[in-house]
Amino acid sequence: MNTQKDFTHGGNIYEIQKQFSIEKEKILDFSANINPLGISPMVKEAIINSIPFQQHYPDPDYTELRESISEYIKVNPDDVVVGNGATEIIYLFFRSLQPRRMLIPVPTFSEYERAARLSHSRIRYFPLKEENDFHINAAQLIKNLADVDALVLCNPNNPTGQVVAEEQLMEVLNFCESQDIWVLLDEAFIEFVDEASKITGINLIGKFKNLLVVRAFTKFFGMPGIRLGYGVTKNYQLIKKIKAFKEPWSVNGLASAAGVAALKDKAYINKTREIIKREREYLFRELSQIKWLNPIQTYTNFILIKILDEQITSTGLRQSLIPYGVLIRDASNFINLNEKFVRVAVKDRESNTRLISVLKDYRREGI
Amino acid sequence: MNTQKDFTHGGNIYEIQKQFSIEKEKILDFSANINPLGISPMVKEAIINSIPFQQHYPDPDYTELRESISEYIKVNPDDVVVGNGATEIIYLFFRSLQPRRMLIPVPTFSEYERAARLSHSRIRYFPLKEENDFHINAAQLIKNLADVDALVLCNPNNPTGQVVAEEQLMEVLNFCESQDIWVLLDEAFIEFVDEASKITGINLIGKFKNLLVVRAFTKFFGMPGIRLGYGVTKNYQLIKKIKAFKEPWSVNGLASAAGVAALKDKAYINKTREIIKREREYLFRELSQIKWLNPIQTYTNFILIKILDEQITSTGLRQSLIPYGVLIRDASNFINLNEKFVRVAVKDRESNTRLISVLKDYRREGI
Repeated sequence: MNTQKDFTHGGNIYEIQKQFSIEKEKILDFSANINPLGISPMVKEAIINSIPFQQHYPDPDYTELRESISEYIKVNPDDVVVGNGATEIIYLFFRSLQPRRMLIPVPTFSEYERAARLSHSRIRYFPLKEENDFHINAAQLIKNLADVDALVLCNPNNPTGQVVAEEQLMEVLNFCESQDIWVLLDEAFIEFVDEASKITGINLIGKFKNLLVVRAFTKFFGMPGIRLGYGVTKNYQLIKKIKAFKEPWSVNGLASAAGVAALKDKAYINKTREIIKREREYLFRELSQIKWLNPIQTYTNFILIKILDEQITSTGLRQSLIPYGVLIRDASNFINLNEKFVRVAVKDRESNTRLISVLKDYRREGI
Repeated sequence: MNTQKDFTHGGNIYEIQKQFSIEKEKILDFSANINPLGISPMVKEAIINSIPFQQHYPDPDYTELRESISEYIKVNPDDVVVGNGATEIIYLFFRSLQPRRMLIPVPTFSEYERAARLSHSRIRYFPLKEENDFHINAAQLIKNLADVDALVLCNPNNPTGQVVAEEQLMEVLNFCESQDIWVLLDEAFIEFVDEASKITGINLIGKFKNLLVVRAFTKFFGMPGIRLGYGVTKNYQLIKKIKAFKEPWSVNGLASAAGVAALKDKAYINKTREIIKREREYLFRELSQIKWLNPIQTYTNFILIKILDEQITSTGLRQSLIPYGVLIRDASNFINLNEKFVRVAVKDRESNTRLISVLKDYRREGI
């Protein structure tokens, strides 16, 4: 397992614009897993209305925003700490707890590792198996938790799209609680899952004091440019520690107003769930019919795909699709993946159809 | 010198709203040093136009923003690193360099100390003398730099309003260069100074490789809610170190668009300089005529004031003015200041007149 990988992410349409002279507005970006509905009109309006108020500092306690979030996820406002994207909360978890040894199931989102390394944690990988569709097995995971101070679970997992089932999660959390192991449970994509309320760790924060659940507005509310996320825990000592390390006003006032409005737009929330469910099924079915591709079963808004053709690499495929205005995620820089994996977001029907057609053309032409 | 002080800042109108049931929109906030013109109409328009694009991640390199900044301050785009307010750059300076011992002239902005402590730096204070209007004396400062790894200079200094003259700055920088001492030069308020171009360290980055100049959009462009600042240095090793610790996308896309637009609005920039110059003189003159107050000479957009009346404390004065809808900064929590100091921002004529009238009433009534 090659662990010398870079931390490049998807969604960098600026680089594509520079390299290929394609206007960034014309790129169909399947490389970032963002709600295809775009930003809710209610969010847009809230941002516009809040502009004049940005001549003041943001509320250092973000009271209104924390209250909105706590209503949305049905917890106490004191259980919530907001951040500049989920990313800030992830970094604060490591900075404030300084775990000596970390277990990270891989492949997964690379910022956990970067954050852990900057806080001098030692990393142990738990390689998920391709033959099991990268599914996490709780019993196997627990066997690898000896001498570990913190565990990261990304649920659903990026880039595999897999979820940890409720009973399996309980098993892991029970073990971690008994061994004083901190758990960072990243649910950045959970709102795209059909029965999210059954698998979320938010319901478990009362039971497990070593649990920090992280969520983001980025993906589900289609606003990665706005940078807003939050952490949820009943461990007020942990919140105190996080606040001791938190830089003041890291969430800007426009993002705060956007967040409050986003959670109110129930029509947008319902429509998103509907579209993603339908399009996930459509895109998966269509990808399955392309013989040289093997899409891996997913529960969320992106699909990890194995390239079966020996002649085609992830890097080559990504590069070849750019002139068509289609950007996919070369997944080879995820630890425990290789040059045979790419990831695509589930977008709207028109975009998904375009992706399928470009993929079909690509192999037909044998470029 | 009492060094056990809290890190509370001005500008928290949310707390006032809660405590006094005054709508935050009705508070005249002299406690935060923000351009009274509010946000430039060009900035407002740029934010609105950029909202739809926030369905993409920000450019991780912030190329357009760095180019705008580099044109504005006449440096190379590679010399610029952008941050979530100047605050992020300040924290990154300490996190990436981990200086063992710091010298901080006091009183000054408290986040330097907080950032230094979180990076395990040992702090030495250099107390500025009230009898010299808290002016920095270069020769005295240099005498205190033995065994120090990093120096912070806030120029103009918050909360004193004093500047370090060009020759004095050169003297300090030359000494620091010779002794391998890092210098963090915070110029968050420098654009309010009449002859800023003569005292800025930006012109010196080519000469001093141990120098990081920090600037903010917050104050001069009247947008503290938007969170945007930057660091400038010719030391590319330092920029590399800072980037190694920087969290991705910490500046949101709306802030980035706002920054580009702000620097283009030359009318706003000129009008601000004009108003601040005129109002600084007006407010200083009026304050000087109040017998129980002693305003300290200032070069920027705020005034530190000593309370001469033995019966009146900074805390008491601040509390008493709130019911009038006027919020001033109790400066007693600055290290090397005490219960006899308050700070007020220079605002527009109407607000400044109101402040003066409320202060005059206060003592007349003997509340």
